[in-house]
Amino acid sequence: MITLNWKPDKQNKTPVYRQIVKYIADRIAEGDWVIGSRLPSQRAMAEAFGVNRSTIVTAMEELISYGIVESDFGGGTRVKSNTWSLLMSQPPDWNKYIQSGPFRSNLPTIQTINRLEFEPGYIRIGTGELSPELYPRTLVTKLFRRMPEKVPHLGYLGPLGLPELGCALSRWLKIHKDIDVRPSNIMVASGSLQALQLISVCMLRRGSTVYTEAPSYLKSLQVFQSAGMNLHGIPMDDEGIKYWNMKNASIDSLLYTIPTHHNPTGIVMSESRRREVLSFCQSRRLPVLEDDAYGQLWFEEKPPKSLKAYDATGNVIYLGTISKTMAPGLRIGWVVGPEAVVQRLGDVKMQTDYGASSVSQWIMTELIESGDYDIYVENLRNELKERRDNALAVLEKNFSHMAVWNKPSGGFYIWLRFHKKLPMDKIFTKALEKGVLLNPGNVYDYTENNALRISYAYASPSEMEKALTVLASIVDKYF
Amino acid sequence: MITLNWKPDKQNKTPVYRQIVKYIADRIAEGDWVIGSRLPSQRAMAEAFGVNRSTIVTAMEELISYGIVESDFGGGTRVKSNTWSLLMSQPPDWNKYIQSGPFRSNLPTIQTINRLEFEPGYIRIGTGELSPELYPRTLVTKLFRRMPEKVPHLGYLGPLGLPELGCALSRWLKIHKDIDVRPSNIMVASGSLQALQLISVCMLRRGSTVYTEAPSYLKSLQVFQSAGMNLHGIPMDDEGIKYWNMKNASIDSLLYTIPTHHNPTGIVMSESRRREVLSFCQSRRLPVLEDDAYGQLWFEEKPPKSLKAYDATGNVIYLGTISKTMAPGLRIGWVVGPEAVVQRLGDVKMQTDYGASSVSQWIMTELIESGDYDIYVENLRNELKERRDNALAVLEKNFSHMAVWNKPSGGFYIWLRFHKKLPMDKIFTKALEKGVLLNPGNVYDYTENNALRISYAYASPSEMEKALTVLASIVDKYF
Repeated sequence: MITLNWKPDKQNKTPVYRQIVKYIADRIAEGDWVIGSRLPSQRAMAEAFGVNRSTIVTAMEELISYGIVESDFGGGTRVKSNTWSLLMSQPPDWNKYIQSGPFRSNLPTIQTINRLEFEPGYIRIGTGELSPELYPRTLVTKLFRRMPEKVPHLGYLGPLGLPELGCALSRWLKIHKDIDVRPSNIMVASGSLQALQLISVCMLRRGSTVYTEAPSYLKSLQVFQSAGMNLHGIPMDDEGIKYWNMKNASIDSLLYTIPTHHNPTGIVMSESRRREVLSFCQSRRLPVLEDDAYGQLWFEEKPPKSLKAYDATGNVIYLGTISKTMAPGLRIGWVVGPEAVVQRLGDVKMQTDYGASSVSQWIMTELIESGDYDIYVENLRNELKERRDNALAVLEKNFSHMAVWNKPSGGFYIWLRFHKKLPMDKIFTKALEKGVLLNPGNVYDYTENNALRISYAYASPSEMEKALTVLASIVDKYF
Repeated sequence: MITLNWKPDKQNKTPVYRQIVKYIADRIAEGDWVIGSRLPSQRAMAEAFGVNRSTIVTAMEELISYGIVESDFGGGTRVKSNTWSLLMSQPPDWNKYIQSGPFRSNLPTIQTINRLEFEPGYIRIGTGELSPELYPRTLVTKLFRRMPEKVPHLGYLGPLGLPELGCALSRWLKIHKDIDVRPSNIMVASGSLQALQLISVCMLRRGSTVYTEAPSYLKSLQVFQSAGMNLHGIPMDDEGIKYWNMKNASIDSLLYTIPTHHNPTGIVMSESRRREVLSFCQSRRLPVLEDDAYGQLWFEEKPPKSLKAYDATGNVIYLGTISKTMAPGLRIGWVVGPEAVVQRLGDVKMQTDYGASSVSQWIMTELIESGDYDIYVENLRNELKERRDNALAVLEKNFSHMAVWNKPSGGFYIWLRFHKKLPMDKIFTKALEKGVLLNPGNVYDYTENNALRISYAYASPSEMEKALTVLASIVDKYF
């Protein structure tokens, strides 16, 4: 028989519902409440603990998600313990940071988006990924065919990755990016996200400030927040980040920026702004992390050089990736920075996963060295440009009385801002019911309740037209 | 002109040399000591700070490794600052754990081993990796040829990895391991090391105890120590871990074990011991992490079933990998456990690197599904058996008066224990001078100053003979 002779401490900093989760998990762990036994009713618990019933519901949902208890036939709840689920109910530091971060309110939307992105049947008009239609099958076949003679072994690689890839990237960066570095300045990561993760672990302290553009792609990730850093959004104008707003910028902080075809606004930082940002950061000793995921995807004219190309003092760490131009599944990104930095990141990478897939690295090497990559990217630019023009035309037709948007000169994104604040959660749900998956603006900046990120890279032109028409009909009634 | 009006606080918990590192880094960061200026002599600093000269040397070595200062021609030291190196001089929590962990004394040896493993010219008789000579070129060529028709896209994958690989592994585990699980119980990781990393981050708290066999492969890794856990070695006998020595085993701790062809001792846990360990752990609610990296590499007879095969209550998380049987460069491992656990690990993996290489996963799928993997492994067993026999014969000829060792029934390792304690650091260095890279026993258990891990998987039989003869001549004089 389960008795309830305990009350949560309402003065405690730990939320009451988590105290209840812990109390119940502890009772089960200590064998007081045995497997299969039925918990008291929610009403009885609410009374005994002196809390609202909704608090009990929240606690029960968490315990169910851990697999510690389960709903039974009669609408009650039973104990269904096992060792691992109990372990998980005691969140480590890492998890606490996620739960208590400023980011928490966005989590449910992001979780829904992440889950539905792997379910068929939705038109995804915000997905930051190339459409499977754009998969270069012929090129990939050619690469696989060449692999047997290229790959001498499939053994472990060193901390910086495949040396052949380092050399290929060094040459490619010089030609295409005016970045003049040696292979020893380049570390291959399992995608840019891992590079961010390694940087957060190696280079930053808990409580450090990470400046980003507002809105920022970084807000949709948990990497810096989960490592205990504070994200601080800095507004943008047409020329890029308004860097002069980084009031307390110092060596203890970091600027993360996407200067070219920014995610999610599509803005390209002007050349003069690039020079100003660099000089500001150098004078403040503020390290810069430049994410150049979209730099090759320009349409009409080549964007200004990357910040790294202007960087004479080693103040900038540069991130490149193949994920946005061709194949996220390869999980290949590259970090360019001072030798000591990339060596350190590489050492920690070795302690984390012993390096990126060598098959992926051999494919990437061959892709660059053969020149096939550049030819492929040129074709991709034309494809994306057509898709952009289609999306802009559909927007013009349906949204001009309700919203404003940028005309992107490259990359994937249109930042659609409605003339007034909208109940975006409702619109998200309604669109979902009609088979359209949206990326609401508050995923990128929690104050953005009147914006959406549109990506013309994923949905086909006809899907885009269909989905935007559906969206217009949902939103129209608020105008 | 650099002045020294400061003294370290000797009562402080931070080591004095680190206080000096921080003091100097701070002076440089704040612009007090400008780039290019020469530091006072080591003697002057030792006097001014009131410390031994060796403390100054240690502090300078650390500052040099960060790239903050550099030696100059005259034997002095100059300031050579940049932003990133200053950032790195302020180690985050993570790094502090490595530096202060019990593991620290072993680091230099491991660092040397890790570095030299990527340099040609050494005979490596301890390397836990298959020889490049054993690289199955024909098989890999066949796999690459089949890839174009198998791979439908190279997009992002979901949290558990490629669904086709999950299904293939589920079938394979049933047939070969008597492990009966659904694909939803399996998560693909970028190698077992990443699986360990994810488990340490998701499931354990700082200060938790991780029990391991003593000696243990885990001691040579930094994964659990760097996450703030305490490794606790439990001695072994011929039947495996003496589990009854885990006195305080409880839900807050974890047992990490390699029951089959243990690394580094080669011991196979007996069937009865397996049942006892499981029942002990279940009664204590002690979660078990079973690493089965070598399970397929048996020579004379198939080993007992894995712990996971006996596990009826979900107490065991099982780790498998292709790294020891064929291709570490693929970076593919698999975690088998309760659904809630693998789901959680998968979610965190997505936040870390968005999953393992999909090319690697497609190759792995085809390898298993075609049946080629099993045929390949059978041949590999014969190869390794011959190499084992050669190594044992050479040992018999040269070491029988000085040492004892096991006759491994599978896997890679012979645990060579000398009859007396030896100055292993000296022997390591001497062997290195003669072109032989050793894996000393204290890498696996810091009390083991009279042991070596021998691996017959890497060096060729003739290299093994040569290297062991060199080793015998070095060690002989101590007997």
